[in-house]
Amino acid sequence: MDLSQELALGIDIGGTNTKYGLVNHRGDIIEKGEIRTDSFPTIEEFVEGLHKTLSPLIAKAGAGDSLRGIGIGAPNGNYYTGTIDYAPNLHWRGVIPLAKLVSERFGLRCSLTNDANAAAVGEMMYGAARGMKDFIMITLGTGVGSGIVANGHVVYGHDGFAGELGHTIIRHGGRKHWSTKLDGSLEAYCSATGIVLTARELLAASNEESLLRNFSDKELDSKRIYDCAIQGDRIAAEVYRFTGQILGEALANFVMFSSPEAIILFGGVINAGELIMAPTKLHMEKNLLPIFQDKVKLVFSELKEADAAILGASALVWEMRD
Amino acid sequence: MDLSQELALGIDIGGTNTKYGLVNHRGDIIEKGEIRTDSFPTIEEFVEGLHKTLSPLIAKAGAGDSLRGIGIGAPNGNYYTGTIDYAPNLHWRGVIPLAKLVSERFGLRCSLTNDANAAAVGEMMYGAARGMKDFIMITLGTGVGSGIVANGHVVYGHDGFAGELGHTIIRHGGRKHWSTKLDGSLEAYCSATGIVLTARELLAASNEESLLRNFSDKELDSKRIYDCAIQGDRIAAEVYRFTGQILGEALANFVMFSSPEAIILFGGVINAGELIMAPTKLHMEKNLLPIFQDKVKLVFSELKEADAAILGASALVWEMRD
Repeated sequence: MDLSQELALGIDIGGTNTKYGLVNHRGDIIEKGEIRTDSFPTIEEFVEGLHKTLSPLIAKAGAGDSLRGIGIGAPNGNYYTGTIDYAPNLHWRGVIPLAKLVSERFGLRCSLTNDANAAAVGEMMYGAARGMKDFIMITLGTGVGSGIVANGHVVYGHDGFAGELGHTIIRHGGRKHWSTKLDGSLEAYCSATGIVLTARELLAASNEESLLRNFSDKELDSKRIYDCAIQGDRIAAEVYRFTGQILGEALANFVMFSSPEAIILFGGVINAGELIMAPTKLHMEKNLLPIFQDKVKLVFSELKEADAAILGASALVWEMRD
Repeated sequence: MDLSQELALGIDIGGTNTKYGLVNHRGDIIEKGEIRTDSFPTIEEFVEGLHKTLSPLIAKAGAGDSLRGIGIGAPNGNYYTGTIDYAPNLHWRGVIPLAKLVSERFGLRCSLTNDANAAAVGEMMYGAARGMKDFIMITLGTGVGSGIVANGHVVYGHDGFAGELGHTIIRHGGRKHWSTKLDGSLEAYCSATGIVLTARELLAASNEESLLRNFSDKELDSKRIYDCAIQGDRIAAEVYRFTGQILGEALANFVMFSSPEAIILFGGVINAGELIMAPTKLHMEKNLLPIFQDKVKLVFSELKEADAAILGASALVWEMRD
């Protein structure tokens, strides 16, 4: 390990696993690992468990010398307060002052935000948004997350909760979201879950032959729909075309809000590549005013999906203001 | 005139008239006036005309001593470049380097932005957004304009064109905009023009008695629709209820983007008061995630409409960085 360099500790908290990594300024992960999130009944035990696991690593890294601080990405993480607020995917309830607890236990500065904002900071520091001051990152996974950067800073809003673009309404009176109950939100269509629902709707609406009919409701997922689409299945291809159309329409609205240099797409859904990118770009451009057309770069993330969360969390450390 | 105070010269350029005013830090307009925009065939003649009119005023104000600079609000004004780019309402064509021309002719620093952004800066400096770092200003007039402030700064985007919220799509496949040709944009419904179109549609859709039927198509305007609504006319009231619903839905999307402390409404349409405010608030709250509900202040501008443009333009001067 190179002891002469500055390092940041990035921690990404998920419902099942918590991943961590020591990262340098270039975005190289020097060392990484994970612990089970759900094996700690209380937050205090979790922080203690983290400390026990990470202490040897921190000692190796040279402690106060080269380790600049700890960055945490967590669901419902609030940058201003350093708390995790009522995260539905975590078993700890209420408002959790995690940044404070970690900072006190480790004796290091700690910054916390939600996972989508952390991903945006990671992309700005190490990925496709290097050098950009205005961009939007959209994560298309189980849900649809987003991180917005304007004037070189993450837009947190007055309360720390800005950037919930997955919950904006794109189809008035459209598909009801299974959890938020909002009608016609972006996430209801463009998440992996939404894509499967679109496939089921299209299958139910006709008797047309489709490879998708070989799968049970339980087996049908966005990956299998993609596989069928590249085998030439018409309904499967239509699922991605429709998903891209909705996404493109939503992106046009976002562009007219903050006029970003780029929109960066991330998450499992983008494995579909051009199948989703082509209709997304088409419908984004179609719904833009002329002054915005053919200007916004629509690109995929340059961070490896497995590492992105750790990198994003670690990047918060370089953002800390003295 | 108090010569001991610092002053800013605010200039608001409209298609017909150009208004100007000398403004102090408190937002008092010390002196104001206007010249015809359209009486100057070229931009050079316009700048010369401005200079001739304003020189005595500037001399009285004590020139370099107390006059800090010039701020200009103009349609399609670009903050980064100081240019007016292809403004459809002005008779000068192409890209006009107005900030440079004015700065050179007057020997004073000059900052320029579009009228909606200027209004937002004015509201932050002198009006309802004093002390706020995150808010959105929506102007409901002939068109629908917007200025967005995040982290204490106007969001200009990477090219200076951010904040075109009037052109975001709120109804997929909805009413085609008379000028942009986009389907279902906010401006197509919530501008004064859109409100009249809604009234015509409702009148055409039934034979129900309505005071609105006393007016010819030419006579029908948002003011008359308001007058009929407060006289108890059901269709006129429905026009404003529907307008508020669309506006509220759009505001919910904007809130989930930048989580502002307040949304400030401005422009002729807000003279309808509660008639538009009540349905707007109802439908905004209805379409928000719980974490955003009952938090965003929805308020009317505190600036007099006649002075707001001058105040906004002048406020750009206090924003200038040395």
